[in-house]
Amino acid sequence: MNGAESLLATAAAGGVDLCLANPGTTEMPLVAALDASPEIRAVLGLFEGVCTGAADGYGRMTGRPALTLLHLGPGFANGIANLHNARRARTPVVNLIGDHARWHLAADAPLTSDIASLARPVGGVRTADSAPDLPKQMAEALAEALGPPAGVVSLIVPADCQWEEASGPLPPAPRPTLPEPEQEAVARSAEALRAGGALVLGGPSALGKAGLTSAARIRAAGVPVWVETFTARIERGTGLPDLPRIPYFPEQAREALARARCLVLAGAPEPVAFFGYRGQPSRLLREDQPALQLAGPGEDAAAGLAALADRLAAPDAPLSSPARPEAGRGPLTAASLGQTLAARQPEGAIVVDEAATTGGPWTAFSAAAPPHTVLGLTGGAIGQGLPCATGAALACPERPVIALQADGSALYTLQALWTQARENLHVVSVICANRRYRILQVELARAGIAEPGPKARSLTSLDVPAVDWVSAARAFGVPALRCESAEELDRALQRALASPGPSLIEAVLD
Amino acid sequence: MNGAESLLATAAAGGVDLCLANPGTTEMPLVAALDASPEIRAVLGLFEGVCTGAADGYGRMTGRPALTLLHLGPGFANGIANLHNARRARTPVVNLIGDHARWHLAADAPLTSDIASLARPVGGVRTADSAPDLPKQMAEALAEALGPPAGVVSLIVPADCQWEEASGPLPPAPRPTLPEPEQEAVARSAEALRAGGALVLGGPSALGKAGLTSAARIRAAGVPVWVETFTARIERGTGLPDLPRIPYFPEQAREALARARCLVLAGAPEPVAFFGYRGQPSRLLREDQPALQLAGPGEDAAAGLAALADRLAAPDAPLSSPARPEAGRGPLTAASLGQTLAARQPEGAIVVDEAATTGGPWTAFSAAAPPHTVLGLTGGAIGQGLPCATGAALACPERPVIALQADGSALYTLQALWTQARENLHVVSVICANRRYRILQVELARAGIAEPGPKARSLTSLDVPAVDWVSAARAFGVPALRCESAEELDRALQRALASPGPSLIEAVLD
Repeated sequence: MNGAESLLATAAAGGVDLCLANPGTTEMPLVAALDASPEIRAVLGLFEGVCTGAADGYGRMTGRPALTLLHLGPGFANGIANLHNARRARTPVVNLIGDHARWHLAADAPLTSDIASLARPVGGVRTADSAPDLPKQMAEALAEALGPPAGVVSLIVPADCQWEEASGPLPPAPRPTLPEPEQEAVARSAEALRAGGALVLGGPSALGKAGLTSAARIRAAGVPVWVETFTARIERGTGLPDLPRIPYFPEQAREALARARCLVLAGAPEPVAFFGYRGQPSRLLREDQPALQLAGPGEDAAAGLAALADRLAAPDAPLSSPARPEAGRGPLTAASLGQTLAARQPEGAIVVDEAATTGGPWTAFSAAAPPHTVLGLTGGAIGQGLPCATGAALACPERPVIALQADGSALYTLQALWTQARENLHVVSVICANRRYRILQVELARAGIAEPGPKARSLTSLDVPAVDWVSAARAFGVPALRCESAEELDRALQRALASPGPSLIEAVLD
Repeated sequence: MNGAESLLATAAAGGVDLCLANPGTTEMPLVAALDASPEIRAVLGLFEGVCTGAADGYGRMTGRPALTLLHLGPGFANGIANLHNARRARTPVVNLIGDHARWHLAADAPLTSDIASLARPVGGVRTADSAPDLPKQMAEALAEALGPPAGVVSLIVPADCQWEEASGPLPPAPRPTLPEPEQEAVARSAEALRAGGALVLGGPSALGKAGLTSAARIRAAGVPVWVETFTARIERGTGLPDLPRIPYFPEQAREALARARCLVLAGAPEPVAFFGYRGQPSRLLREDQPALQLAGPGEDAAAGLAALADRLAAPDAPLSSPARPEAGRGPLTAASLGQTLAARQPEGAIVVDEAATTGGPWTAFSAAAPPHTVLGLTGGAIGQGLPCATGAALACPERPVIALQADGSALYTLQALWTQARENLHVVSVICANRRYRILQVELARAGIAEPGPKARSLTSLDVPAVDWVSAARAFGVPALRCESAEELDRALQRALASPGPSLIEAVLD
């Protein structure tokens, strides 16, 4: 058994069943070893950001790390942006990065670069130093990725360590469980909320069904409850409480939180401004508004919320059952698009929301849609949606996946469509084609540039030429339709959701 | 004048006339300042790797740095792969990377990451620490990028430094000239060649017309002359000597160099194996074969070669005038494709060669084509061709650009087609569609995997589904045709070369 085989056998023993790969010469022994690893599915991406974004989506849905298999520094670099999102989502991911044979590094061959320097900004970095070291490094990387808290781990695997003889695989470590928050933190949180504090939920534990249900009880006891602005994963729809988000722009967020005496954080970090604006502080809280933690990202926030609700003697919260919206009508706008999608999305859908400025109305309408899971853009690195949807579909083949996707962002990683076609994944991508970087046009105005010049207009516009998304999808083997009204979108959505395999809808916004 | 304006005015004074941009919120003052900088053309890329690859192509053709304008760590990360190629090509490039306002970094907002750690592997890194510091940093970054030797410099520009008041721009530094090699190096090189050494040419100075002409004289004096395997830029075609390349695979390279008593390096580093293979050393030379330097990468290798030829009393070298090939016929193969392109490429063409395993025959045939410039893949980071061609066309609007492009590699950065359409650049992309990572199938066999299993076959195959390149080009506004014979390719090439603006030809290989 060589190092590559022992590494993959250790990964398989530890529960790994997916490898998202864009390999090269330095990964050939690992590629060959995949054929000796029946437990691990190998899925090819045409671009590394597809692999890493898919690993993020897979990890969010399963709680288990997928492997990525990437080629040296430059191949890994192409995957960094979506690993940045995974890092902020605290998704477990293990990157296998092939490197030159150790004795070849000194030659400074053309593809040599400092992989560790590239990898450190997104998480833990390990470098194997022998073939027998590989299974040990793999086992430790898996444990580190699972946490708690979970995260991204990069394992640099020199080619000679892959092809040389190793010992057998290592047995799996026990699966970690999230520790419950201390009683002391529950007591302090209850006291703070009784004294006029507000509760902020973040992370998949707090935003799962149990956590949300407890949060609804706490709200019923009179406590203001907020959800962090960008969520890795949240359960939504009928039967689940519809809780407000902390607004995106800091002045709005500050206003929303102004009346809270303090914040109690359940799985969320203290909210801060997404960007630093001139004359506005980073912090959203005043100096007289402290923040205290009920549960950190590595703790069982749902259990903490249940204990907190009990401690507050919070009543059961009757959930309202809002009527599901009808499909929208007329011109295609963010509102009619969001309404139509909320009217048609099936129960159990996974919606990957990288809709940017088009997403707000859908978020509001979909509270009355059947229960579904939403995966959001956690790290602000755009180009996350189509890959993340690909990974979610690989994780949950029985659930329909909808990528609600801004057009500008989709263009960073559109190669994900090919993997969807190749693996026949049931992903419906709805491209919100406003043909501009609308958020940047807003930000230009916020920066005091009321009348952008021709270059500033050009650098925020995507209309010359307008991307033809139907052709783009066809290029990658995904059937596609263009819609220019809510009625057309309604028909296209129904058809796409009823068809197996991937499809794409270009929704040209008015 | 704010920091952003002062920075760009300093750049313009230093000769910068192009900014390849994919900006975000933290770069808004720089975006606005571009409108106050009439000397600097602003070109939008849909993906950062397009911007950095285009900056590489532009820098190779002009010898001057373009700016890239990129958004924080994740945006920069998307550009690293092509910066790796630029680093290996020693192309001058200055990256402007917006970062959060300095006082916002401590908040660890979602887009915060360690940009310097990401940037160090591709070159120099500078961080501005105030608005008045920005023009100084820009001037120093320009000087550092120009060298000699030239290279990639990344300047991290916090948002507050952009919007705060700065002093006026700094005047340009004198343009550096390449120093000529020492007479001592010329004398030692001559002695070594007389004693049975071989000459290796590398870098744009040695591989320009003057350097090549001197090298042809040296060859005529009986010295074996080689060109480095992957060249940033080389002049080729009729009237220029056709010199052999050092072969790619190390065992072939070793055999090619076996009879040389030593190597004299003119602008080239000592050649080493591209990858480390089991049982083969990194070095291509034996222990008894020393290498010595006539000219380093920061020296005027062409002047060194002229002095060397004189010192060797080398005769003028009559150049053969091989007959230009006819266009190929019949099925489309690497040979008939290369022959047809060599038959049709116009005088003065810039050919960006990322054809990988399809490129060999064209290289042979094109020695008899009219004079042209070839830009190659220097760092092995694939996805370089379409962006580099875009940048070459921005640098040289009067010259036709041909991207001879492997299909697998093209898929990393196909968004470059959109910039070609938007800027109406005369780039003809010939996609060599063999629908596989053929080099990896070769490498699997070299790694002893004679019968790849289904996963190894799948991870090296691109045929399910086959990418429809005609649709991909249409998606981005580029007219396209598919060819399945040499005759079809011939007609398509003639049409594309005669039309202004971009076009794409999908050459489906037999």
